[in-house]
Formats: sequence, C-alpha cells, structure tokens
Amino acid sequence: MAAAPDASSSSTPTRVAQPQWQVPAKAVPEPQLKVYNSLTRTKTPFVPTKGRSVAWYNCGPTVYDASHMGHARNYVTQDIIRRILRDYLAYDVHFVMNITDIDDKIIVRARQAHLVKTFRAQHPTLSQPLLQTVQEAWSAYFAKNVEQFAPPLPPQERQGGLAATAEKARAGEAGFEEVARLRQDAAWLKQASEKEPKFAMWFAALEKSRNAQIAAAMALGAGDASKQQAKDLIDASEDVLSLHLDKALGHTVTDPAVFRDLAAFWEAEFFNDMKRLHVEPPTTLTRVSEYVPEIVAFVERIVANGYGYAEGADEGKKNVWFDTRAFDGAKARGDVDGDFCHSYAKLQPWSKGNKELLEEGEGSLSTSAAATVGKRAASDFALWKSSKPGEPAWPSPWGPGRPGWHIECSVMASEVLGTTMDVHSGGVDLMFPHHDNEIAQSEAHHDCRQWVNYFLHTGHLHIEGLKMSKSLKNFISIDEALERFTARQLRMSFLLQPWSSRMDFKASALGEVKNAESTFNNFFAGVRAKASERRALGAAYSDGQHHYEQAEKALMASLDEAQRAFREAMCDSFDTPRGMEVLLDLVSKANVYEKSKARRTDVNVGVLEAVARYVGDMLKMLGLGEGPAASDALGWGDAASGEGAGAADRDEVLMPYLRVLSSFRDSIRQLARSGASAGDILKLADALRDNDLVDLGVALEDTEDGKALVKLVPAEQLRAAKAEREQAAAEKQARKAAAAEQARLKRLENLERGRIAPTDLFRPPHVGDAEFTAWDERGLPTLDGEGKELAKKRRKNLEKDWDKQSKLHRDFLEAREKGEIQ
Amino acid sequence: MAAAPDASSSSTPTRVAQPQWQVPAKAVPEPQLKVYNSLTRTKTPFVPTKGRSVAWYNCGPTVYDASHMGHARNYVTQDIIRRILRDYLAYDVHFVMNITDIDDKIIVRARQAHLVKTFRAQHPTLSQPLLQTVQEAWSAYFAKNVEQFAPPLPPQERQGGLAATAEKARAGEAGFEEVARLRQDAAWLKQASEKEPKFAMWFAALEKSRNAQIAAAMALGAGDASKQQAKDLIDASEDVLSLHLDKALGHTVTDPAVFRDLAAFWEAEFFNDMKRLHVEPPTTLTRVSEYVPEIVAFVERIVANGYGYAEGADEGKKNVWFDTRAFDGAKARGDVDGDFCHSYAKLQPWSKGNKELLEEGEGSLSTSAAATVGKRAASDFALWKSSKPGEPAWPSPWGPGRPGWHIECSVMASEVLGTTMDVHSGGVDLMFPHHDNEIAQSEAHHDCRQWVNYFLHTGHLHIEGLKMSKSLKNFISIDEALERFTARQLRMSFLLQPWSSRMDFKASALGEVKNAESTFNNFFAGVRAKASERRALGAAYSDGQHHYEQAEKALMASLDEAQRAFREAMCDSFDTPRGMEVLLDLVSKANVYEKSKARRTDVNVGVLEAVARYVGDMLKMLGLGEGPAASDALGWGDAASGEGAGAADRDEVLMPYLRVLSSFRDSIRQLARSGASAGDILKLADALRDNDLVDLGVALEDTEDGKALVKLVPAEQLRAAKAEREQAAAEKQARKAAAAEQARLKRLENLERGRIAPTDLFRPPHVGDAEFTAWDERGLPTLDGEGKELAKKRRKNLEKDWDKQSKLHRDFLEAREKGEIQ
Repeated sequence: MAAAPDASSSSTPTRVAQPQWQVPAKAVPEPQLKVYNSLTRTKTPFVPTKGRSVAWYNCGPTVYDASHMGHARNYVTQDIIRRILRDYLAYDVHFVMNITDIDDKIIVRARQAHLVKTFRAQHPTLSQPLLQTVQEAWSAYFAKNVEQFAPPLPPQERQGGLAATAEKARAGEAGFEEVARLRQDAAWLKQASEKEPKFAMWFAALEKSRNAQIAAAMALGAGDASKQQAKDLIDASEDVLSLHLDKALGHTVTDPAVFRDLAAFWEAEFFNDMKRLHVEPPTTLTRVSEYVPEIVAFVERIVANGYGYAEGADEGKKNVWFDTRAFDGAKARGDVDGDFCHSYAKLQPWSKGNKELLEEGEGSLSTSAAATVGKRAASDFALWKSSKPGEPAWPSPWGPGRPGWHIECSVMASEVLGTTMDVHSGGVDLMFPHHDNEIAQSEAHHDCRQWVNYFLHTGHLHIEGLKMSKSLKNFISIDEALERFTARQLRMSFLLQPWSSRMDFKASALGEVKNAESTFNNFFAGVRAKASERRALGAAYSDGQHHYEQAEKALMASLDEAQRAFREAMCDSFDTPRGMEVLLDLVSKANVYEKSKARRTDVNVGVLEAVARYVGDMLKMLGLGEGPAASDALGWGDAASGEGAGAADRDEVLMPYLRVLSSFRDSIRQLARSGASAGDILKLADALRDNDLVDLGVALEDTEDGKALVKLVPAEQLRAAKAEREQAAAEKQARKAAAAEQARLKRLENLERGRIAPTDLFRPPHVGDAEFTAWDERGLPTLDGEGKELAKKRRKNLEKDWDKQSKLHRDFLEAREKGEIQ
Repeated sequence: MAAAPDASSSSTPTRVAQPQWQVPAKAVPEPQLKVYNSLTRTKTPFVPTKGRSVAWYNCGPTVYDASHMGHARNYVTQDIIRRILRDYLAYDVHFVMNITDIDDKIIVRARQAHLVKTFRAQHPTLSQPLLQTVQEAWSAYFAKNVEQFAPPLPPQERQGGLAATAEKARAGEAGFEEVARLRQDAAWLKQASEKEPKFAMWFAALEKSRNAQIAAAMALGAGDASKQQAKDLIDASEDVLSLHLDKALGHTVTDPAVFRDLAAFWEAEFFNDMKRLHVEPPTTLTRVSEYVPEIVAFVERIVANGYGYAEGADEGKKNVWFDTRAFDGAKARGDVDGDFCHSYAKLQPWSKGNKELLEEGEGSLSTSAAATVGKRAASDFALWKSSKPGEPAWPSPWGPGRPGWHIECSVMASEVLGTTMDVHSGGVDLMFPHHDNEIAQSEAHHDCRQWVNYFLHTGHLHIEGLKMSKSLKNFISIDEALERFTARQLRMSFLLQPWSSRMDFKASALGEVKNAESTFNNFFAGVRAKASERRALGAAYSDGQHHYEQAEKALMASLDEAQRAFREAMCDSFDTPRGMEVLLDLVSKANVYEKSKARRTDVNVGVLEAVARYVGDMLKMLGLGEGPAASDALGWGDAASGEGAGAADRDEVLMPYLRVLSSFRDSIRQLARSGASAGDILKLADALRDNDLVDLGVALEDTEDGKALVKLVPAEQLRAAKAEREQAAAEKQARKAAAAEQARLKRLENLERGRIAPTDLFRPPHVGDAEFTAWDERGLPTLDGEGKELAKKRRKNLEKDWDKQSKLHRDFLEAREKGEIQ
C-alpha cells in the first residue's frame, strides 16, 4: 500500500508547486561484488539469477571419523562467506549442505568396528585360541604391509631377508625377530619414516601388538587368563585385528543398522563441533540415504540421455558408469538455450584421466578388477555400484547396490535447488574428480549449459608447513584445537588468510591472532568503561563533550574511510585479511585520538562509541561474536523473563551458579543434621568463597558487617589472586616451621647442656684433671689445682655457673622423664 | 591483497584451458530502493552520493518535559528506517541527532521552576503574606486568561460581567464568585471546553488553587501555620504562581545553570525512554549549547552573502533576521555547480507567510513587538535573538543573545556532515517553518543548490481519533505507555502503519498487534520445541526426515517468495505494513504445512527451522527483538567466562542469583557463630528454597539422597505452585483447627456433665423429687419413690452411672483446679 503523507497544516497542499528536485549525483561509486570462481580461475562479477536470492550447495562431510582442523577451516570459511553475503551484502541465502552417509570408508569402518566388538564378546578372557587369532592377524598384517613399506631395506635384509620373512608370515609364522631386528636399526627406521609417512604408524601398530602378544603368552604361561589380559591384548592389536577380521568375516555383516549407526554418531559429532565453532546450521540439510530413489531415477535419465551405461557379469548385479567419452564434446539436445557442446572436467580439464585421483574418488571397495568389470574407459566413473555381501544395498533396476560418490550431490542439489544454482562450494581437494564429475552428471542429466555459476573452493590447511596427517603426528582434531584455542581465535586465524589459498596453521601465527584479539578487547573495554563512567557522572549521554573539534572530525572521517575500505575488501572476493587490517587500523586511529587528549574529560566518548560500535558490528557479522550478543537463537527473544535473558541462554548462564548454590545448601543441611560444629559450617562457607565461586569468576569479599560483597571478576584473575594468597600462606607457614625447628634445636642444645649434673660440673672429665683438688657436698670446688683455697670472686662465679647448671639439669631430667630426650 | 588460489594437485594448471564460462542471466531483477521524499512528495529512487554511505541528520527533541507517544512514534520510526537501511539494505549509516537545549520553552520552564522553588524556600510555613501572594497570582491568572477563554459567555456574564470581573481581578480583587458561578453552569462549561481544549485546564487550575486558598484561609484562622499547609497551598497553585512569579521576577534569573540543568535532566529522561523503546543512540549527538560559536560564524556568513540583516533599537542589542525576500529567487553566486536560483520554502511553498505557523516557530519570548523591532517582512525569521534579562545569552557581534530555533540544525548538520547530506528527517509538524527555514539558511550559507537530497517526515500520531493533548486528557507519556504495553508491542503498532502517514493509536488496534505477536510467539515456541525434541531423540540434526517431498518443496518455495516480497516491500519506501503481512503470511503457511502432516514425525523440522530463522531474523532486524538476542552491546561479547554470556549481560543476569547465594551464606555464618540450633539452619535452607529462589524462577526439589534437583522454571509458575501449597496447608490447618475446636467443645460438654458430684447425681434437682426416697452414704438410691427397695438390676445400672459420673466429676474438679472451667 502506498504511504500517504500527512496533508500537514495546509488545506490545499498543491496550490503552489514545489521547486524542481535534483537527482543526486554519485560522487563515489558503489563497489560491486566479485568472487574468485574456480570455473574461470579469476574474480568474476557476482550475478545471482533470481534477484537477491542466492541458491548455494555446499559439499558436507563424509561421516566416519572425528572432524579435524582441515574441516574446521573449510566449514568456518564457508560460514564466513555465507554471513558476509547475508548479513553484510544483504542477500537472501539458501544454504544447502549434504551429509554423505553412504560411502566405502563408512562401510569399512563400520564393519571393522562391528567385527572387533563381536570378537571381544566372543573372547571375554585370555585364551590360547584368542592369542592364536591375534598372531595370525599380526602375521597377515606384517606380510601385507611389509611389501608396501619395505624399501629401502637395511643391508642385512636386502637379499631376500624381508621377502622371506613375508613368505614365512604368509605361511603363518610371525615376523617377530625381523621386527625386533629392524627396531635396532635406527638409521633405517628414520629413512623409512621419511620415505613413507605411514610407515611409522604401521611399524608402531606391529610393535604394540607384538609386545602385547608376548605379555599375553607370559600371562597364559603363568595361568593368568583374566578379562583384563584379554582386553589388553585386543586393545593393543585392534589395528591388525580389524583388517584380519574384515577380510575373513566382512561379507557376513548384513544388518543395515551397523552402517547407519556409525554415520549417525559421527554426524552428531560433526554438528556438535560446528556449533562450538559458531558455524550456523545449513538452511537445508540432506542425507544420501534419504535420496536413494531420486538417485536411481537420476541415473536412469543419464543412461537414457546416452551418457551412462550399465554393465556387469551378472544381469542382476550391474554397475552403472558415466560415459565420459560420450559426454565430452557432445552437442546438447532437448530444450536448451542455444547451441553448445558439453565439456567434461570444466574445473580441472588437465586432470582428465589422472588414475590416482580417479581411483581415490571411486572408493576403496570399488577399484578392484572385480568391482570394475564392464567399465569401458579409465576416465569413466561409477554412478551406481553393485553391492557385494557385507555392503549395504538398495533396490535398483541394476540389482541391489548403492550410489557412487559423485552422483549424490548432483541429485540432492537438483532436488532442493532445481536445475541450476548460483554457488557451489567445497574443499579444494574435491575439485577433481568429485566436483568435475558432479558437474558432468548434472549437465548430462539436465542437458544444460551451466549447472553451477560460481564454484568456490576453500584452500587447504597445513600444520606448521606440513600436510596434516595422523602419521605425521601433526593431526589436530577440532576437539583438540578447541582445548588450545577459542572458537574466536580459530576463526580469526582463518579470517587473516585469503579463503581460497592454502593456509599454514602455525603456533607463531596464533600469537598474531591473540594480539589482534587483545587489541580489539582492550579497545572495547576502554570505550565501555568510558561510556559507563560518563553515564555514571550524570545525565545519560551528557558528557559535555559532543562538540566536533578537528580531532573528532578526523576520527569520524577515518570511520567513514574505513567503512568504504572494508566494503571494498568484502566485495573483492571476500578479502577478509584486508578487512581485518582495515578494522585494526581504525582501532589504532581511535587509540591515537584518545591519547592525543591531555585530559580524560576532553575525549569525545560519543565518537569513540561510534567507532567501537561499527568495529564490533563488523566482527560480529564475521561470526567472531561471543556470548549472548552472538547468539542467533531462533525467534526474536523472550521478554517474559524480565532479566533480559532468553530461555535457552538463561539456562546455560545460570546453571553452573545454581548448582553451586544448591550443593552448598545440601552440604549445610547435611552438616546441620549430623550435628556438626559451628566451625565446620564456617569452614564450608570459606570453601564456597575460596574454591567453588573462584572457579566461576565470582569474588565474595567478607566484610565487617557480615554482609559479603559480590563481584563478577574473570575466574583467571581470581585464581591468580588465590594462588598468590596460598603462596604467601605457604611461605608464612614455611617460615614458621623453620623458626619452630630452630627453636627445637636450640632447646635440644640447652637440654644437652643440662645432661651434666651440677654436682659433676666441676669434676673431671668436665674440667681438667688438675683444675681443682677439693669439692664441697654440692660438688663446688673448694681448693684449686694447687690446693689453695679459691678466691672469693672465683668461687662466686662458680656458684653462679652451678646454679645455672642446676636449672639446666632439672630441665634435662624433666625432658628425659617425658621422653623428649634420651 | 589478491586471493591466490591453490594450485591444487596439478603441477601445470594451465596446460589445458577451461571451457568458456557463461555470465549468468538475471531471470528476476533486483528491486531498487525508493523513498517517499517530502521534497517531491513522491517516491524517488534512493541515490546516496558517496557509495553506500548515508549521511543522515535527524531533528532531535527540545528537552523541557517528559516524552510522549508522539515522540515514541517519531523516534521509533526513524530507528526502524535506520535499521532497515543498515541491517537489511546494507548501507553504512551515519545518523546524527541534535538536542535542542536552548529554546524559549526551556527558558520559561526553567525560570518558572526556579522561581517557584525559590518561593517555596522563602515561604516554609503558611502565612498571611504567602496567601496574599497566591491570591494576587490567582487574580492575575484569572484576568489574563479569562479574556482568552471567555467567549462564548453564559448569558448572565454576557453584558460586561466577566469583563468587569477581569477588571476587578486586575485591580487585585479575586474572581472567586465568578468561578463558583461558572462552575454551576454545566452547559456553558461543556460548550467552552469544546470550543477551546485548553479551557478545561485553565479552569481546573483556577478551581484547584481557589479551593487551596479557602483551606489556607481557614487554617490561618484556626492558627495552623504549618509547613504542610504552606506546601499544600503552593502545590495546588503552582500553575498560577509560575506565571505570576515569572512575570514579576523572570528578569532576575541570571544563573546559566538554571537553564542548563533543566535541559540536562530532560535529556537524560529522553534517552532513558529511548533505551526502553529499543531506539539505538545516534552515531553522533550534538547539542546547541556546544555549537554557539559556530552558529555565530554561520549567521555572519549568511549576512555577508546578503541573505540576512541585523537590526535593533540599540547597537549592542541587535536581532539578526533571515531575509526571505532577498533569498527567494536569488541567483546563486560563488563556486556552485551550474546556474540556478534559490527557492524559499521548498517543502511547503504554499505556507510562505503563514503567520500562525511562523510565530509558533519563533518562540513565545520572541514574537512581541519589542522582540521583533527591525524585522522587515512578516516571512522573515530570527537567526539570532538578542537576549533580555532573564534569558541566557552568549557573546556575538550583535551583542549578547542566543540562536534562533532553525539555525542550530543548519549549523550542526553542516559541521558534522559537511555541505550536503543524503537524508534529513523529523516529525511532519516540523516541515514548515522549521525545515523550510533550515534549508533556506543552509543553502544561503553554502550558496548550494540542494542541501538535503531526501527529506523524510514521520506522520502524526493521534490517540483514539483525536490529536493528543494534555487538555484532552488523552495525553500518554512514554512511561505510561510502557506500563500498558511492551516496547515490542508499541513498535509493532508503528510498524503496522505506513511511516509517513498519520496513525491512530487505538486500544482496538493494539489487540491486533497482540494477536500478531502471539502468532509469531506460538510459531517460534512450536518450532523450538520440535527442534529440541528432535535433538533429544538422538543425533543432532538427525530426524530421519530431511527428504523434500512436495509439501516441503512448496514451503521452501513460499520462503523464497516471501523473501522476495519482503525485499520489495522494504524497497518500496520501507513499506513495513506490507512486510509484516508477508511475514505473518509465511508463518501461516508454515502452520498449514505442519498441520498437513498426519504424524508429528512426518514433519521436516529443518524446513520449519529455516522459515522460523528467516522470520525471526527479519523481526530482529526491525528492532522487535527482546532479551540477549536483541542486545546490541558494544563490542563483540566476552568469551573469557566461557559460559556464553557477555560481560554486561552476565552481570545483569547473574547478580540477583549471586546476591541470594551470598546472603544465604551470610545468614548461615551468622547462625553458626551465634550457636543456633540445627533446626534454625534447616529452616533457613527451607526459606531459601520456598521464598528467595521461587521469586527468581528457580525450583529446588529436595530429594531422598540429600542432593536437591535444580530447575529453571518461570517464577510465575513457581509462585502459583507455592500459593497452591500454601492454600492446601492453610486448608489442612483450618480443618485441624476446626477439629480441635470440636474436641474442645466436646470436652467442655463432658466437663460440664461432670459438674454434678456423684453423691448428688440421684438426688433432686437432678432427678424428680419423687424418684427415690432413701440413699446410701455414696448417694446411691436405696429405695424408690414408693419406698420399695430397688430391683437388683436397676441398682446395678445406677451404680454404673454413679461410677461414670464419679470419673466425670473427678475430671471436672481437676479442670476447675487448672482453671480450664469455672
């Protein structure tokens, strides 16, 4: 409806015409968004086909293991771009992501885990058959891998040694001695590890199991067949057992739940990690297992279009292959827009026929000669795989089977977004063959010219200069990363690198991230403090300093320039490193402005607030927000609870504190019931203050009037203060103990001096033999060595000594009575 | 820096060229923003001059009184448009707002309040001089206003009656009788009130003071000269006293703080109201009082350009006027872009020379003949006003004075935003003369063609069909409005009306608002519950229902359409009523989708979440968010405390709980120290559970094992449960008391029965005179009335009764001993 203006106070508003209005001239043009497009390998202007809606499909994870830093970079980066498009550049984004829950890796993992679990149940205690099976598994593992990892061999093995060992192992004899011998050869071990990174893992698995087998054999010899022994042996031999059991029994695993449960578990873990990384859930989530009928229909259409063929030894067990040669260069038919020829491998045409990449794409269960019967060209790839026993299967016109890896994304993206999309994204390692095959399949199915308009690939992540891998021991799971860094720090480290380039995750770079974080934190804390100080001083917003002098005008001009530069960076294919630089530079200018003022009251806090608000808004826009301001809870918040906390946040924030309150109350009640003393209760109150609340960042300061003061202070700070107090107390205690020891020794010395009875004090051996010659009844000398009477003065001194000794001796006797001294 | 892509796995990535990429064709165009521009009275395409920066100046409040619903509509509306521009349409908005703290209304208010305060201090107790002054003030008030409000007169006053009264009043005689007589004439009162809305206020003020004067005279007569009497009289006479004192003493008020303090107080109140309405503070706030030197320089330049002139009786006391006739039609000189002529009153040219509007714009102290000496044309207006005694003054080349009203905005906008701006806004009542004069002054100063490109005027607000006014008693302050409605409800009521049209604030329309609010709330609560139920059931995001059937595809298509329609509405001059309709319609479609599913597990919760997330995001974007999700705290939140709460919010949320914890601990310590019993401590623990925590919405459930269960439950619910428990306990108590009373009465009855000694039991008057004739020593009858011996059986029964009575009597004696019975 049209917004009808007030007629205002004039009754005939059109009586006199308004003068001509000038259309404003654009003095500064608006930057236009360009994105780095893998389909052109250049930055191309971004043109979504439907107004400001963006249809986006992102390749999600194959869920069979814990997510690692590579995943973190990939999904956080896509989250950042999604937020920029939606929250900064004002597009309506429909973000679709799939979960690959049908995959050869999932099948193998699930089957092995299931078989090991079953094996454990079958062998609750240590037994000869158990040990026997482990030994067989070990030998097979050794034999299979020794060939793969052996060269270069150490000299003594070079002539058939290891090969012979492998032969023995295959025949059931262990390679125990060889492993022990190889372990001795440090130079060879080092060389082998450098040559093939997986060597170390293989060798470690062999050694671990070998040691466990020796221990198990000794235990059996000693008659110990305990559960613990069985567990230890199987735990140490899980790697070797998995392969062995899967080879022998894999085909017997038929329960679909085995595969589904493993995928569901790792999917939940994945989304849990994403939540902790502040990655928003997709608008639409799809799972392969829920789209199998659509996949079958999609494949049928490709075959019908002449771009796929079904082949197999057995009519009811066929694979379906994509016919890359038929497709590449074929003229499109059907209802398409203009004449054009299809192209295979649009993203990476130079990789067509790269066997290694192609085989990796097909999956470990799908590259054997048996699995590729009927495949016409090396570059062809599976659309549908016939399932062998021990592999999950769905019905199809080609017999029971499962989708190839690439087809799922073609089908789900088409189902949700239609026959074309604006953006497709994924990790750069998926470019060929996965994404190229996806494109080929979809363009073969829709017979369309361009299924994806913009293909975004996030760059690789290396760790300290090396590819991340479990064998290199530089593998970092998201869980581990979040123990060392916050979600904000990780995201900042990604933001500081171009999203499409390879990035090196280095401890040293994280230092830079933490510096930047501190710079922002200090700035915000400073402005917040000034704003609240100003408000506390009087009228809200009244600081008496709103006037714009030159410095204020300059800072506002910097804000304006920063806004322009930030926008240009974002429009330049989401150049977040430059964007962060712009924001840091603006903060630095604000800090310089503030320092330029002689008195604190000269600072125009409003201008600082304007800068802080913009910087904070942009950081939050990039997903760097923490706490409730970052919360993107569904809905529009909840006013009912009054205190400004939405239901969910309220729970999360309050519960730890309430639990402490409740458990304090529990303990108090228990103490009261058990008739504890006042001292015990007071001690508990102290512990609440000194332990529980310190960990929660609550400072409780007991005051004279018995009403403690409550403060919220960072827990770190409280812990530090507590440690300091404890340290001081410990030092005081130590000083006291030292003093006490000193006193004890002194006393012992005194007591020791009192051992001599006063009557003996002036007799040998306590004085020289010739010192005195006569004594009275108390043992006081009466005549000196020469038989002369003692001088009065000397006698007096001796009497004094006698009295002193008499007291010392009394003390000594008393102490000996009490057992204090022998 | 350029984002260098990974070279991926190929070592020579350019060996084979990629096929030609097609620039996508736009199937659906992007809507372009148009805004309703008061300068054209049409919707014009929005073209900011500097990229996506928007320089915006908004007329802020004149701070001399509490803000009302008219202000609420105005500032909330501007806040909504600002948020749409910034958070939805992705502009960088620099929003400048001024505070008018120099103004005739402020001067008069401040002076009057100051003089009444001084008067109070001078008259702490009731006295004849006090009453005398009030009477003089009353008569003057009556005389001054009776002329203004008198016609139509009641018949008996028509012939000189009231005029004579006014004459008497001027001479110092009160119009008491006339007021009393008029009060009798209900028909005239009604007629007068309808004719002139302010009449009722005037009459009420007269009556109130009159009654207080009568009461004061009686009190003085009775010798009561108390402080309370003085206070009552002055309170009731504040309106009449203010005018009187200001007339007599206004010129003596010279302390600038008098004017500044009043403005600062109401400014703080204004921003407090804005905060409660979730109106964001401006990027830049300016105050007139901080820009006086710039205003002087600006006026000098206008005069120098030949568009202003200074005139006055006295050289050192000149006014400066804008020369509308010189300006209107003048050819621009200086460094301007092309040839053009200036126009005066671009917004409302038909209002040129409207005396009433012009005078209102000049201010109550600035329209007298004395104040307009030297003004050359009626359409000319003040740029600078010479200040009389009792008016604040700043130095200028024209002597001490103050800025005219309109000039401030020209100067502050130019100072902050430069010589042109994209958007200027304000209430529609400011269009003429304020905004037209502002434009003229600025274009005269800058000698430019178009100072403002887009002028947005928010529509008037009426209450239940009538203009809001204190005299109509339909005046609603923001404070009152927020007692009746939430900030969200008020904002929604504005959003549901076109922003530039007059809106009628009606209780009935608020019903519609609350319905819409409930619709959204119910939808969000439902989706949240389903999402959390789904997650609780197993793997996060794994509901086994991600597949898109026809219904899911249709709902996602509705979301897509809604996004398009919402964007079109926002781009159509911020058509929020249509936008809200689009969102409500989308929610309704989601509800229909959900109801279409037979089983709850058939619902695709992900699709509902996508809809809810979009709707919630848009509502929050419009400023309708509540709680932490709505928080726009400065910065990016605080991760340090881990639990997800930002520093400020954390304080706010936690403190009430921590205070309870701390004070519980305080009390426990005190009890322990004072050697209280276990019972006292347990009682305190119960009180914590039943009182303090209930009020905070925490349910503590004590369990068998002594470990209480903590739950967060709405406080309302806990209070209700507690009230129910208390009710039940009270009922039980009452039942017990009733039973006890019953028992007491029963016992009294028994005791009463025992009053007779067993020895008297069978003697008259307790039995008939003729019943027995002889008794033994215990008083047991031996012979019956006829002198016959009693039958053995009868004697036995009597003995039983005797024994019973004997026991009753013993009880009675015992009770009488204890005083239980008389």
